[in-house]
Amino acid sequence: TSPDSSEKLPKHVPYLIIGGGTAAFSAFRSIKSNDAKAKVLIISNENRKPYMRPPLSKELWYTPNANEDPIKDYRFKQWTGSERSLFFEPDEFFVDPEKLEDSVNGGIAVAQGFSVKKVDAQSRTVTLNDGYKITYNECLIATGCAPKNLPMFHDAAPNVREKVMVYRTPDDFDRLRRYATEKRTITIVGNGFIGSELACSLAHYSKENGGGKVYQIFQEGGNMSKVLPNYLSRWTMAKMKNQGVCVIPNASIKSATRDEESLKLELNNGMTLLSDIVVICVGCSPNTNLASPSKLEVDRSLGGFVVNAELEARRNLYVAGDASCFYDPLLGRRRVEHHDHSVVSGKLAGENMTGAKKPYVHQSMFWSDLGPEIGYEGIGLADSSLPTVGIFALPSATEGRSSTDNLTENRDADDGSKHTIIVDEKSQTDAVTCDDDANEEQPNYGRGVIFYLKNEKIVGVLLWNLFNRVGLARTIINQNKKYDDLNEVAKLFEIHS
Amino acid sequence: TSPDSSEKLPKHVPYLIIGGGTAAFSAFRSIKSNDAKAKVLIISNENRKPYMRPPLSKELWYTPNANEDPIKDYRFKQWTGSERSLFFEPDEFFVDPEKLEDSVNGGIAVAQGFSVKKVDAQSRTVTLNDGYKITYNECLIATGCAPKNLPMFHDAAPNVREKVMVYRTPDDFDRLRRYATEKRTITIVGNGFIGSELACSLAHYSKENGGGKVYQIFQEGGNMSKVLPNYLSRWTMAKMKNQGVCVIPNASIKSATRDEESLKLELNNGMTLLSDIVVICVGCSPNTNLASPSKLEVDRSLGGFVVNAELEARRNLYVAGDASCFYDPLLGRRRVEHHDHSVVSGKLAGENMTGAKKPYVHQSMFWSDLGPEIGYEGIGLADSSLPTVGIFALPSATEGRSSTDNLTENRDADDGSKHTIIVDEKSQTDAVTCDDDANEEQPNYGRGVIFYLKNEKIVGVLLWNLFNRVGLARTIINQNKKYDDLNEVAKLFEIHS
Ligand SMILES: Cc1cc2nc3c(=O)[nH]c(=O)nc-3n(C[C@H](O)[C@H](O)[C@H](O)COP(=O)(O)OP(=O)(O)OC[C@H]3O[C@@H](n4cnc5c(N)ncnc54)[C@H](O)[C@@H]3O)c2cc1C
Ligand SMILES: Cc1cc2nc3c(=O)[nH]c(=O)nc-3n(C[C@H](O)[C@H](O)[C@H](O)COP(=O)(O)OP(=O)(O)OC[C@H]3O[C@@H](n4cnc5c(N)ncnc54)[C@H](O)[C@@H]3O)c2cc1C
Ligand SMILES: NC(=O)c1ccc[n+]([C@@H]2O[C@H](COP(=O)([O-])OP(=O)(O)OC[C@H]3O[C@@H](n4cnc5c(N)ncnc54)[C@H](O)[C@@H]3O)[C@@H](O)[C@H]2O)c1
Ligand SMILES: NC(=O)c1ccc[n+]([C@@H]2O[C@H](COP(=O)([O-])OP(=O)(O)OC[C@H]3O[C@@H](n4cnc5c(N)ncnc54)[C@H](O)[C@@H]3O)[C@@H](O)[C@H]2O)c1
Repeated sequence: TSPDSSEKLPKHVPYLIIGGGTAAFSAFRSIKSNDAKAKVLIISNENRKPYMRPPLSKELWYTPNANEDPIKDYRFKQWTGSERSLFFEPDEFFVDPEKLEDSVNGGIAVAQGFSVKKVDAQSRTVTLNDGYKITYNECLIATGCAPKNLPMFHDAAPNVREKVMVYRTPDDFDRLRRYATEKRTITIVGNGFIGSELACSLAHYSKENGGGKVYQIFQEGGNMSKVLPNYLSRWTMAKMKNQGVCVIPNASIKSATRDEESLKLELNNGMTLLSDIVVICVGCSPNTNLASPSKLEVDRSLGGFVVNAELEARRNLYVAGDASCFYDPLLGRRRVEHHDHSVVSGKLAGENMTGAKKPYVHQSMFWSDLGPEIGYEGIGLADSSLPTVGIFALPSATEGRSSTDNLTENRDADDGSKHTIIVDEKSQTDAVTCDDDANEEQPNYGRGVIFYLKNEKIVGVLLWNLFNRVGLARTIINQNKKYDDLNEVAKLFEIHS
Repeated sequence: TSPDSSEKLPKHVPYLIIGGGTAAFSAFRSIKSNDAKAKVLIISNENRKPYMRPPLSKELWYTPNANEDPIKDYRFKQWTGSERSLFFEPDEFFVDPEKLEDSVNGGIAVAQGFSVKKVDAQSRTVTLNDGYKITYNECLIATGCAPKNLPMFHDAAPNVREKVMVYRTPDDFDRLRRYATEKRTITIVGNGFIGSELACSLAHYSKENGGGKVYQIFQEGGNMSKVLPNYLSRWTMAKMKNQGVCVIPNASIKSATRDEESLKLELNNGMTLLSDIVVICVGCSPNTNLASPSKLEVDRSLGGFVVNAELEARRNLYVAGDASCFYDPLLGRRRVEHHDHSVVSGKLAGENMTGAKKPYVHQSMFWSDLGPEIGYEGIGLADSSLPTVGIFALPSATEGRSSTDNLTENRDADDGSKHTIIVDEKSQTDAVTCDDDANEEQPNYGRGVIFYLKNEKIVGVLLWNLFNRVGLARTIINQNKKYDDLNEVAKLFEIHS
């Protein structure tokens, strides 16, 4: 830990933040800009200063120095060409926790490697795992999420477990990158954000470095099925195959045994894979261990600490980021696990900690990339279990002109709920042979907009290879109106230009 | 309305309370004792000053002047023998709303007959139905519940509807008492608190005044089945029959038509009843109409405005009483529809409105009487869908001595969920003939204690004809322990003395 003992931490701080991630750092910035001499103590159970996670599954794999180990400061090239570090600020930016109390201009100190086990909202006291207590005026819980593992690996033999990992931190990146550098076979489980992004990044890295097979297996029929409508999920899967990912949909692991240096994975569809490492990307669950001793409420269905529209759980106690289950006055109770939400909610919590009393009404967005052909941004409830209408610009025979393909999909009327596994013989064969012969007879969903509907209103928008239009999408969601013709709404997005 | 126009109401008040019932008045008292010169404005859509409801289904029917119409000040005899009014305070206690602003020592004013349609938590402004706006420093929502009707009566013909009523206010009492005085046949629908209490009270009134049949029909197998374990629910039903209530369990109304001065009710069990008035007592739903325009959250499963453990929905905005869905740090998220809860939660909200920041940890209680032989008090989750253990003192052959009957009942293992209708031929016959031959071969559950269990812990206690033990029951629930032997716990309650 740093400092080496909790005794060296202050006994009281005006602002205390539990967790040292994105929401935490964003809250610090906002506290500081509303209370210039604020003294803020972050308590983080990680042994690093606050950093961002998105490049871990994307940019860091595309960086020329991606085979330095470790990459200094986890520097990476942004899409803009400029370089930056995963860390929000360099070490010098931070105040030493032992000096925070006496720091005339305030600042932020990070107690690294300490866990908070309890918050007493009434006495405004936080208790660390070792029993050390710190009192506060205002407190923020920003504990984020922890990756889930599959139950089958919880009690697996140690020689199996050592070949199975989850993916959330720079250490996970370092470890996986070593496998990739050694051209090992990597199997990713899960079709969501991390699984799909990482599969693309690894396939790219493997091409650059001449080797290493990348499998992606999941139970669903296509990639990103929680977000994308079926047709687009399948189309995306085809693109992933084109990029060299051996996608195996409609599949799950039946058993895993150790076979020399590899794991032998028997799938429920009869296939057997040999893999040097298995990366489990099956979602994460909010870190709410401290809820029960603190007598704080965890949402019965969504998980996360229950807070109101002002992100307040109890007086002087707020929750932001992945771990916050908040009331969205427009879209209802939600929990959001994305970078921008952690920035925006952290910012609002910080403002409210300095007295603003504002509700959370700014709709946050998210983005993802799946190789060079797919980039998308979303806002609101981009949930494929809702009815969707997608409007795409299709490249026509004459380049430069385009026509519109209007797709209406209601999952209820379609091929069932997302829990149904559709056994698709063709794509399984594709997967096994890792051919690039992806189902090309489908329309080309190169660019478009997808509306997600609830009670006939637009509650979510996905911008598919369409950039700089999030503001417009936000305006439309905030309007909260019923539109007769979504084609007209789509025109606002100028999908052809 | 009083005053006659909203223009005469203040434009700003330090404390504003929406709703003028028990929680509202309790909050006023607590605000006043924490802020001696507080100016409090209550806005009530009723045309009365704050009053309590419990005597409406009990004491008022036992009062010697119960046939004055209306009873002056709704005075009634308490069980202690002393007399009091339904109103918490006489008219003179209140400040005229027009004089509140200038009142040197503060006080409470009630704007009667005005409805609030919206609260804006951020600008701290309340809007009345007529558009008039009042700003506040601290606001409490205490809008209570409204009785439900049965869907079949919503669109019934006017001449049917005029013979159907719900029961919540003094006006409802006056109306029903007129029927009772005229010795009319009264049919009560529902087996819950109001239905069962009112049936007993009416049967008593009818005996005293020589006439008027009282039917009570419901779908369940016995009275108070949401609270009482099956055996006790059936036993209670037998007692109700003894008191002259014609109880018809396992039954519902199939159709209702007008037959001269009466309603002809055809039941699903083949019976036909002729009744002069039908009183629907099938529960109530929280008054949350103002939630949606105010962008306040309503709990997805329990109903009511969502508030945290401090009863706060948004900064400076609290909710207490029946309409409050609060977080109980011990027993989880709840909504409670009882008098004591509205007093205790109103008191806490008032304290927090003056700055206390306290959580709601005092377990409220409830009580009910069903004629001279049954009185009970409950605390915590007295919910018969939980496993229960009941321990009773049975009168033995030699008076004065008693033995213990220990009953364990788990509804899952028993005769199914409370939605199952058990067709019990015997009790139906009883009902039709209104005999007093209630099933007397059952043990006599004269006095005892019932524990309600969750995860093997005691989460609720019902004190059956046992008085002055609520404090003990509260202590046991708060201990939140697993007990090996509930008989030992029962001994603490001294059920034999
Ligand atoms: C690989 C990866 C890639 C991602 N890419 C994107 C992306 O491209 N776009 C996007 O929108 N989102 C992305 N996300 C999601 C985004 O990173 C998260 O939503 C965001 O990090 C959440 O921020 P947070 O502050 O709530 O939690 P975190 O960043 O997880 O921070 C929480 C911190 O609290 C610490 N902590 C937990 N409990 C305690 C305790 N009791 N005491 C002390 N400390 C504690 C944790 O160890 C952690 O350091 C990605 C996530 C991952 C893992
Ligand atoms: C007949 C009867 C007998 C009962 N007996 C018992 C008993 O023995 N023991 C027990 O524990 N409990 C009993 N209860 C329940 C108990 O009375 C309630 O739990 C209690 O009244 C709830 O208090 P409250 O202040 O939340 O709501 P209420 O007392 O219902 O007060 C709410 C007030 O707000 C007003 N209002 C609603 N919306 C608005 C608006 N938008 N603008 C302005 N005003 C508004 C309503 O008209 C009402 O006047 C009984 C209830 C009834 C009906
Ligand atoms: N671009 C981004 O916004 C981005 C990028 C990376 C990560 N993240 C966030 O990081 C978190 C973790 O990402 P993730 O991809 O693990 O989660 P995810 O929620 O995106 O996807 C989880 C996937 O796990 C699979 N799954 C769930 N349970 C399973 C089971 N029992 N067996 C097999 N498969 C199962 C499903 O395929 C599901 O789609 C998420 O909160 C995500 O939003 C966001
Ligand atoms: N002593 C007390 O604490 C007391 C006394 C009176 C009233 N109250 C409160 O007043 C409120 C109203 O009392 P209540 O007796 O109407 O409600 P209740 O919740 O006590 O009982 C409702 C009953 O209605 C019946 N029911 C529900 N839906 C039905 C349907 N569709 N068709 C037929 N029957 C149906 C069920 O029999 C159920 O038990 C409650 O909140 C109650 O707690 C409390």
